[in-house]
Amino acid sequence: MKQFKTILALGISMMSLVYGQELKSPNGNFVMDFSLSKDGKPTYQLKYKGKDIVKPSTLGFEFKQNNQMSFDWEDKNLDKNAFSNFISGFQIIDTKTSTFDETWIPVWGEVDKIRNNFNELAVTVSQPKTERQMVIRFRLFNEGLGFRYEFPEQKNLKYFVVKEEKSQFAMAGDHTAWWLPGDYDTQEYDFTETKLSEIRSTFDKAYTGNASQKAFSKTGVQTSLMMKSSNGLYINIHEAALINYPAMHLNLDDKTMTFESWLTPDAVGDKGYLQAPFNTPWRTVIASDNAAEVAFKGPQMIYNLNEPSKIEDTSWIKPVKYIGVWWEMITGKGSWAYTDEYPTVQLGVTDYTKAKPNGKHSANTKHVKEYIDFASKHGFDAVLVEGWNEGWEDWFGNHKDYVFDFVTPYPDFDVKELHSYAKSKGVELMMHHETSSSVRNYERHLEKAYQFMKDNGYNSLKSGYVGDIVPRGEFHYSQNIINHYQYAIEKAAEYKIMVNAHEAVRPTGVARTWPNLIGNESARGTEYQAFGGSKPNHVTVLPFTRLLGGPMDYTPGIFEMDIKKLNPNNHSHVNSTIANQLALYVTMYSPLQMAADIIENYERFPDAFQFIKDVPVDWKDSKYLEAEPGRYLTIARQDKNSNDWFLGNVNGDNSRSTKIKLDFLEKGKKYEATIYADAKDAHYKNNPQAYTIEKKKVTSKTILDLTSASGGGFAISIKEVK
Amino acid sequence: MKQFKTILALGISMMSLVYGQELKSPNGNFVMDFSLSKDGKPTYQLKYKGKDIVKPSTLGFEFKQNNQMSFDWEDKNLDKNAFSNFISGFQIIDTKTSTFDETWIPVWGEVDKIRNNFNELAVTVSQPKTERQMVIRFRLFNEGLGFRYEFPEQKNLKYFVVKEEKSQFAMAGDHTAWWLPGDYDTQEYDFTETKLSEIRSTFDKAYTGNASQKAFSKTGVQTSLMMKSSNGLYINIHEAALINYPAMHLNLDDKTMTFESWLTPDAVGDKGYLQAPFNTPWRTVIASDNAAEVAFKGPQMIYNLNEPSKIEDTSWIKPVKYIGVWWEMITGKGSWAYTDEYPTVQLGVTDYTKAKPNGKHSANTKHVKEYIDFASKHGFDAVLVEGWNEGWEDWFGNHKDYVFDFVTPYPDFDVKELHSYAKSKGVELMMHHETSSSVRNYERHLEKAYQFMKDNGYNSLKSGYVGDIVPRGEFHYSQNIINHYQYAIEKAAEYKIMVNAHEAVRPTGVARTWPNLIGNESARGTEYQAFGGSKPNHVTVLPFTRLLGGPMDYTPGIFEMDIKKLNPNNHSHVNSTIANQLALYVTMYSPLQMAADIIENYERFPDAFQFIKDVPVDWKDSKYLEAEPGRYLTIARQDKNSNDWFLGNVNGDNSRSTKIKLDFLEKGKKYEATIYADAKDAHYKNNPQAYTIEKKKVTSKTILDLTSASGGGFAISIKEVK
Repeated sequence: MKQFKTILALGISMMSLVYGQELKSPNGNFVMDFSLSKDGKPTYQLKYKGKDIVKPSTLGFEFKQNNQMSFDWEDKNLDKNAFSNFISGFQIIDTKTSTFDETWIPVWGEVDKIRNNFNELAVTVSQPKTERQMVIRFRLFNEGLGFRYEFPEQKNLKYFVVKEEKSQFAMAGDHTAWWLPGDYDTQEYDFTETKLSEIRSTFDKAYTGNASQKAFSKTGVQTSLMMKSSNGLYINIHEAALINYPAMHLNLDDKTMTFESWLTPDAVGDKGYLQAPFNTPWRTVIASDNAAEVAFKGPQMIYNLNEPSKIEDTSWIKPVKYIGVWWEMITGKGSWAYTDEYPTVQLGVTDYTKAKPNGKHSANTKHVKEYIDFASKHGFDAVLVEGWNEGWEDWFGNHKDYVFDFVTPYPDFDVKELHSYAKSKGVELMMHHETSSSVRNYERHLEKAYQFMKDNGYNSLKSGYVGDIVPRGEFHYSQNIINHYQYAIEKAAEYKIMVNAHEAVRPTGVARTWPNLIGNESARGTEYQAFGGSKPNHVTVLPFTRLLGGPMDYTPGIFEMDIKKLNPNNHSHVNSTIANQLALYVTMYSPLQMAADIIENYERFPDAFQFIKDVPVDWKDSKYLEAEPGRYLTIARQDKNSNDWFLGNVNGDNSRSTKIKLDFLEKGKKYEATIYADAKDAHYKNNPQAYTIEKKKVTSKTILDLTSASGGGFAISIKEVK
Repeated sequence: MKQFKTILALGISMMSLVYGQELKSPNGNFVMDFSLSKDGKPTYQLKYKGKDIVKPSTLGFEFKQNNQMSFDWEDKNLDKNAFSNFISGFQIIDTKTSTFDETWIPVWGEVDKIRNNFNELAVTVSQPKTERQMVIRFRLFNEGLGFRYEFPEQKNLKYFVVKEEKSQFAMAGDHTAWWLPGDYDTQEYDFTETKLSEIRSTFDKAYTGNASQKAFSKTGVQTSLMMKSSNGLYINIHEAALINYPAMHLNLDDKTMTFESWLTPDAVGDKGYLQAPFNTPWRTVIASDNAAEVAFKGPQMIYNLNEPSKIEDTSWIKPVKYIGVWWEMITGKGSWAYTDEYPTVQLGVTDYTKAKPNGKHSANTKHVKEYIDFASKHGFDAVLVEGWNEGWEDWFGNHKDYVFDFVTPYPDFDVKELHSYAKSKGVELMMHHETSSSVRNYERHLEKAYQFMKDNGYNSLKSGYVGDIVPRGEFHYSQNIINHYQYAIEKAAEYKIMVNAHEAVRPTGVARTWPNLIGNESARGTEYQAFGGSKPNHVTVLPFTRLLGGPMDYTPGIFEMDIKKLNPNNHSHVNSTIANQLALYVTMYSPLQMAADIIENYERFPDAFQFIKDVPVDWKDSKYLEAEPGRYLTIARQDKNSNDWFLGNVNGDNSRSTKIKLDFLEKGKKYEATIYADAKDAHYKNNPQAYTIEKKKVTSKTILDLTSASGGGFAISIKEVK
């Protein structure tokens, strides 16, 4: 009998080696199965509460045949043609399961602690024909699945080049998707909401113009991708810990509804130069039958897949509420450039003191002082100034190598004077480094630029990568350029500088490891409202897509929607109501929040502006009260530093009424709520500036009846009444 | 009559505007004619003593249609299709002639002063159809012609991209040429000597293997190109002042015997991102009926076309005679790498103190001290050490990004100890930075690496760019990478560091402007004698080709030709006699001269070694006594710091006798000559180590009868007898 039991046990374990491994999430809702197909292809599938999230899908790589390969393989008499296949012919040689459950404290966030709890399966597979192996590591959280590939140090895989990663995600149906065109260079598109089967036919319409763009497939989309199935499941696909690897897009086979990873190539079409030992980023599939779970817990799962903070002393990292000399240039009211007199400029050669000022240069000492005064008066932490430095006359569209030096101010911007003035007013100045995507130039100047910041009292930085990458051939999301963004962040940490990188790759939770990365834009932000407008429901999609990997510097707070009023030549319209703009400070989580409009527009609406003044930028806890991608999102957040709560609702195309229970308030306590809401006849297009402000006593028992306009919303501050 | 004369004068000047401009060299031997063809193509031709050097040849550019162009041209309603043509449809709108005659003092050189004397013609041509103009500037020296294009600041040409430069050089016949395959990545080929018409059929044979290479045409050759016509004219084509532009190759139309410029592309095929105002490098055509003139005066003309020195205090720039821990690794006797234990390494992660040393690591403290001792004993200035730093285990062929950090020594190389030891012995240590062509990585570490040098007593640096450029897609001679080499040189000057850049682009006289660029290899050097051998007449070609643009760190002085004796697994043979090796210190001009062999081999031949000890590395004057490319070259040079003279002869394939007049010696003075010559039966292959040393009293009246073996030569030191 004992013998039989042993044989049975052996048999079962052998069967599992052949037939697969099962992994469950801590609460059991998710079940992941791993196995090898008949021809030895690593295959996984994922179910949530018994329903398919990912149908059986294969994993692996195609490698490039290259010199390195021939050196090693000729010596070993291995089949050269077998080199590129890292998809089939595998055997399972080991499996390990484990559990992890720890809670960690983020430096900043929507919550003040995050639980990292998963069950893990690490499968080691080997290709006998080539004597190569890899580990596929699966982590199953209550939010969803993360998996990555690991290449251990081994004799037959040392230096190798990825031709394509072949991670598949077979969808269980023709889901609705909120998608952006897959693109090697930009993320700044409006979302398109269609069924997966309709992506192909709507692609061209979705692919609107950009200073730097490169699509690769009519069914190619970028991550993070949000979907909803016909059986009410919300599914998100993204990646975590994108470090030293090209960014992943998804290419849809719209016959089978299967997505496959499509990496960003370099200048010669290669998709990753790797050296073993190496771990790829994690590929994430987050799902729930509750959309709010995806938007709220999804980012936490992605942070959990990143390494803990590598910065020991984080006391210099602080959330920032700021204003800036910026919107006037974006609208065309003012100018980044100092002069219109020169067709081109050469740094260090062009004598700006001899140039005729164009009279519209916004970043001048006097004007910046006005912003410092306003910030000081109204309790803002910092003032961003764009256009302060030589070089803006020809910064755009010229593929200019030596475009900025990041340290030489224009004649009318007095660095030292503004440093001491800001200091005297208790306000920080925020630095701006537009790189014009001239990446090598930026790296050549980086340390001097960072030192200049420290010498002149700047501790935070907005960087930008507008235009095609220089050197030509590389893309914004190629491995080399991902590597650059990371270099800039890590170098900034050495200088105790916080970084907010615009046009860089969308974040993937790296801010857990490098919490000085306090923001990215890396999506279609508020500026597009001045470039023709964004869809009114744009901000009801972003928290389900772009924000999964990290916060967005969305720069909200626009009070004047008719841009003609700032610049008669600009007929753009901000497709949002004022109440919606206020709500964004709650619904668009970011440790970095800008009140982006010009001072004069805030002075016209001081009562509405009060919400922006009051709303904090760091939170103890958050509750996602109701959520539907593209339709509405209502969030309540508790200030990290008080018992105040703040609510925000952003609404999509159709006016909507809702009932909000305030049962997250502390029982037995009394609060006063100030409710900033759309007026009855408000509308993002026709009547965007119509709002009401109502004060009300509330408790945890209160239920509020609220109505949001088309493209509208509401914002509520709730303060404890003593 | 007056009216008629005026009309005539006008007529003549109009005719010259239409029909051409003539320019003569100061001594009148060269005549250059410039005109516009019927369809407005700028055309030039060059004669020397009435004979054709360059038959009528056109000039101009093809520009790339791009975004920038469309911005500007749509506004102006200009014909987009006309944008790319910058070859025809020109008019002459201005001509200016001038003369220049100045003498300047080089920091180091073959001579202690250089006369810069030319007649200049600057023609401004304009394309009425596109309202664009350029200046073509011609300078005619007694040595030959230089011309360049200048794009003044103008409204219709601001930022533009070169698709191809179209500078033609129509040869007057099927000349003999000493050529190298045109290649975007390497210059390390043996020369091929054929008629121009035979290039196509011999190209594949000439295109031998290299770690990084990229040919572009079966009739493409690189510069500098040396030719000889059937009527006894020696003609060289090269470029001067290659700064911020791609390197030029020449593509031959072998029906018309016309060369056309073929620039090095970037990763996407573009050949130069330019911003007006901009000057291209100079294209040079140097000619004479005396080969010695080309080899001797050619480099001076190319220096003259470069800007004067930008370094004010040059006291830290000193010629260097050095030995090094190098040849043992090149032959395979020793190893750059410290350990063979790890398949790959990661800087900062791999713990070398735990690694098993491979027992062949040459750059260890003890061994380097032996070299310091030897250098000190024999009067050498410096010791080069390669392989001193972490990372050599996988430096080659892996496209590794973070391959070296340039500051972390291996466990057995004691930086501080060797610094003080060398100092105590009056010897400098020469730094080595192999970049493995990972250019961005080098730039990231550059300033720290240079500071490390200063902190540890290194004032000179050999850098290397072995392997394909990282980021992939760029080439060694692309504009971006030319820009990198220049950046490294200029940054080194800030740190008072002398640079000797191997595998960088062949020089083009930039060392006049940046005299801390004391050398390049950038051709097939002595190392190839250990990689299979070079042609025995190789060194009789280099001075007519590679050396036109600047000195070469040829690293001569090999005394053991049978490499098996250093490494039994290496069956290569050094195709040279000892006398030839000695002569190279005279014939291969360089301010940087290495005695490249291992110490033991010098200790075997102390009498021959004496010449290497005696020969200086900086000169007051030089006389090229006899010269024939590929056949022989005999030079006499006067020590800058004494009245001693040194002669060298290198000989080609056939044994040769010659008579050398010592009439350059000072009349009335007595000298003692020590003549190091091939023994009677010497031969580069069969008997390379057979030499004789003879002492002889000589005066300015002496004529020496000397015989050089096949692949041989002679070297003579002539010291004044008091």
